[in-house]
Amino acid sequence: MSIFNFALLNCKHKNMTRITVAKGDGIGPEIMDVTLAIIQAAGARIAIDEIEIGEKVYLSGNTSGIAPESWETIRKNKIFLKAPITTPQGGGYKSLNVTTRKFLGLYANVRPCVSLHPFVSTKHPEMDIVIVRENEEDLYAGIEHQQTDEVVQCLKLISRPGCEKIVRYAFEYAKQQNRRKVTCFTKDNIMKQTDGLFHQVFDEIAKEYPEIENEHWIIDIGAAKMADTPEAFDVIVMPNLYGDVLSDVAAQITGSVGLAGSANIGETCAMFEAIHGSAPRRAGQNVANPSGLLQGAIMMLNHIGQTDVAENVQNAWLKTLEDGIHTYDIYKEGTSKQRVGTREFAEAVIANLGQKPAIFKAVSYAGNTALNLPKYVRKPSAQKTLAGVDVFVHWSGTNPDELAEKIPPLAGDGNALTMITNRGIKVWPEGFQETFCTDHWRCRFKPVGSNQVTPASVVEILQRAIASGVDVIKTENLYEFDGKAAYSLGQGQ
Amino acid sequence: MSIFNFALLNCKHKNMTRITVAKGDGIGPEIMDVTLAIIQAAGARIAIDEIEIGEKVYLSGNTSGIAPESWETIRKNKIFLKAPITTPQGGGYKSLNVTTRKFLGLYANVRPCVSLHPFVSTKHPEMDIVIVRENEEDLYAGIEHQQTDEVVQCLKLISRPGCEKIVRYAFEYAKQQNRRKVTCFTKDNIMKQTDGLFHQVFDEIAKEYPEIENEHWIIDIGAAKMADTPEAFDVIVMPNLYGDVLSDVAAQITGSVGLAGSANIGETCAMFEAIHGSAPRRAGQNVANPSGLLQGAIMMLNHIGQTDVAENVQNAWLKTLEDGIHTYDIYKEGTSKQRVGTREFAEAVIANLGQKPAIFKAVSYAGNTALNLPKYVRKPSAQKTLAGVDVFVHWSGTNPDELAEKIPPLAGDGNALTMITNRGIKVWPEGFQETFCTDHWRCRFKPVGSNQVTPASVVEILQRAIASGVDVIKTENLYEFDGKAAYSLGQGQ
Repeated sequence: MSIFNFALLNCKHKNMTRITVAKGDGIGPEIMDVTLAIIQAAGARIAIDEIEIGEKVYLSGNTSGIAPESWETIRKNKIFLKAPITTPQGGGYKSLNVTTRKFLGLYANVRPCVSLHPFVSTKHPEMDIVIVRENEEDLYAGIEHQQTDEVVQCLKLISRPGCEKIVRYAFEYAKQQNRRKVTCFTKDNIMKQTDGLFHQVFDEIAKEYPEIENEHWIIDIGAAKMADTPEAFDVIVMPNLYGDVLSDVAAQITGSVGLAGSANIGETCAMFEAIHGSAPRRAGQNVANPSGLLQGAIMMLNHIGQTDVAENVQNAWLKTLEDGIHTYDIYKEGTSKQRVGTREFAEAVIANLGQKPAIFKAVSYAGNTALNLPKYVRKPSAQKTLAGVDVFVHWSGTNPDELAEKIPPLAGDGNALTMITNRGIKVWPEGFQETFCTDHWRCRFKPVGSNQVTPASVVEILQRAIASGVDVIKTENLYEFDGKAAYSLGQGQ
Repeated sequence: MSIFNFALLNCKHKNMTRITVAKGDGIGPEIMDVTLAIIQAAGARIAIDEIEIGEKVYLSGNTSGIAPESWETIRKNKIFLKAPITTPQGGGYKSLNVTTRKFLGLYANVRPCVSLHPFVSTKHPEMDIVIVRENEEDLYAGIEHQQTDEVVQCLKLISRPGCEKIVRYAFEYAKQQNRRKVTCFTKDNIMKQTDGLFHQVFDEIAKEYPEIENEHWIIDIGAAKMADTPEAFDVIVMPNLYGDVLSDVAAQITGSVGLAGSANIGETCAMFEAIHGSAPRRAGQNVANPSGLLQGAIMMLNHIGQTDVAENVQNAWLKTLEDGIHTYDIYKEGTSKQRVGTREFAEAVIANLGQKPAIFKAVSYAGNTALNLPKYVRKPSAQKTLAGVDVFVHWSGTNPDELAEKIPPLAGDGNALTMITNRGIKVWPEGFQETFCTDHWRCRFKPVGSNQVTPASVVEILQRAIASGVDVIKTENLYEFDGKAAYSLGQGQ
């Protein structure tokens, strides 16, 4: 077992990248030890600072599961290889993954989803896709408000920097990994502005990578195609919610969730891990499959530009699988040759270093450089003009025409009520009596003729609402950017 | 062909349901004629008013594709069986389906997704699920605003009546169709208030149907399971966006999209159709498969309580498929016995009326009554108290501490700035410098001590913002309902 002993030496050669390692809980320490042994045997140029996170830290009374000095180590080294942790049962413990992603600005979640047919059962033997999921914004900003008895709201926020960073990441990743195509999924036929921005930025950035094919699918049809014929796709980039759902779908249908790694990439920091959990019942028995964490480590090596080491390890791992040297989780009579433990599997991978698989396609990206991910540079501001305001009202009546008698006087001189909608559907003027109405009404005010609406006009509308007993719950200003309306029409308008 | 000639007779027996029929474009007229012939041969107690919609109406200059008097017929009869239509190329033509759904308040989209193995190829031979999708609210309310250079917003609205109606529909449908389980998919671990409401209402209504199993899955894991092992599910009910994506996934992986029908159900009106389009290139050749529209018609018969007729037609259709009598689209050597045209297929179904399939499982719901879908009754109001306000600001700085110097004076006496977030993440007080910030900031004001915040306080904050040159783009009031906070905390708060 001597090959595992040098894993935590802090090597001091030149071109070393100093990384932070957390061995985590359950099977974490075992799989981390052999993962580090494999990549170091392959010549990984890394130096290691180890920190403690997870169960022990939580149970010592630290609700975030990580000590402040460990945070400092992560922030200093910037590259973090993390084994699975156990979050104790009971309230009050914050998810370390969520906190890390949010505070370190890890904007990209990267999930390769590869079938390992015939060694792992799957209905999709040809599958080899990578889901690149935006990780910071969209509905997951978690901004929710209930303002009427009946209606609750969540804000979906999509930003230009968010879109640019994730789309650039997807193309840079595809370029480094010699992948042929990047696909974008959005629902921009419905969400023309938010998903429309994501699609627009995708088209802009795709032009900078003419050697890589690009395409856009509406998410519903794209998801259906992906679930049925995943071999039609290569790299797929998506906003947060879609990526959350479809990365789980893609991972599941490979049949290989337990063997998959993932990366969370930020402008300065990045975290690499296995998808699976800490499996406490398997801990300490030398049975766990280290492949998931090893896949995370290979992504790390690619990220820091050690593509030669990454390629070597990946090909050795593929060869070990096709040699039939399998841990218990994928061992099956017929396809497997030898049932091995964690350490023996790692030894087999190390013995295969320098070799290539024969059944699986060998990977080839040695010599490719680290990803070119420039810091986001803010674009010049557009000319922004206030063009009106949507005033949302809590009103428990049911006939929009009655509301349309109360609201117009709020407009004051120079502005007018132009529309009332309920859940987006125009109900005044000229609504349909079949339209079901909740107690949540949007009243759109716009200037009359050449009048210019101002922030003061909005305040005056609110003052008149107070005076007349109208229950205003929120406002949304309407703007034009460089003369172009930047708000949606009502449905049916 | 005489059996097809009585299809459009307006029968005048008692217990007749008068329905509106549109034969549509392309293959529409052929498949509608045989569909009506089949259900009438099975004893459907319907009388028919035919209207014209679609291409001819669009091209006559009516951008909505339907004449006002046809709308009146639909609204009067309330039950609408619709063949596929062709929307002409070019701008300005409004989607008739979207308009119909929105204006008629068709809150439920129902999509049975059934494998027809071995007659239709699929990787999921055991699949038999029904997706019940909320159809009016969620992000598809289409309320979008861009208010800063960098950030665009879409509102996700989830309402209690919307949730109650769709969940009740799912259970009523399951009960009528003798289905064993209703599953709910949400993302309420992240969207605790919006998706949380959907899940809560699901749990409430499930209690009224103790004979039907119920369960909830987080959407990402649920979608993965559904795509991999759809036979684990039966009826699945979901908010709009999830249902849009997953109903396409489910339909696709059956392999039978071309043979599927769907229903759109409202409180007063309902529309039934095939999922597929008008296939103009196949029109007029007696080759089209009428199964999709026939499935829509069977859903219609169940909806209006003619479950005996629906069961008879469905079993005859299944028997015809397993007899190997197939139209060109599913004909294949080995499993098919006879390649037939549209009319011959319909004749075979009619000849099989009264018989049951032997390979497929026969359906059995004759004798079950129409669905019990009471009109939504508004709940009593809760005690609503204003607890603060989120003021959103467009600011192009990058250091939250600078903003935190400008904003506190806006609070005035009795209120205070308690938090600033950027895309939901707390950046003040005690932010992390790695957190990436856009130009879109949320400033939360709350009362100090026992002070009571009022709508006037909100107006005063806005007035001070104007005076100090702070660019307020929107507000969201914070409320308590019956003393319970009804707004989310900041991430990291």
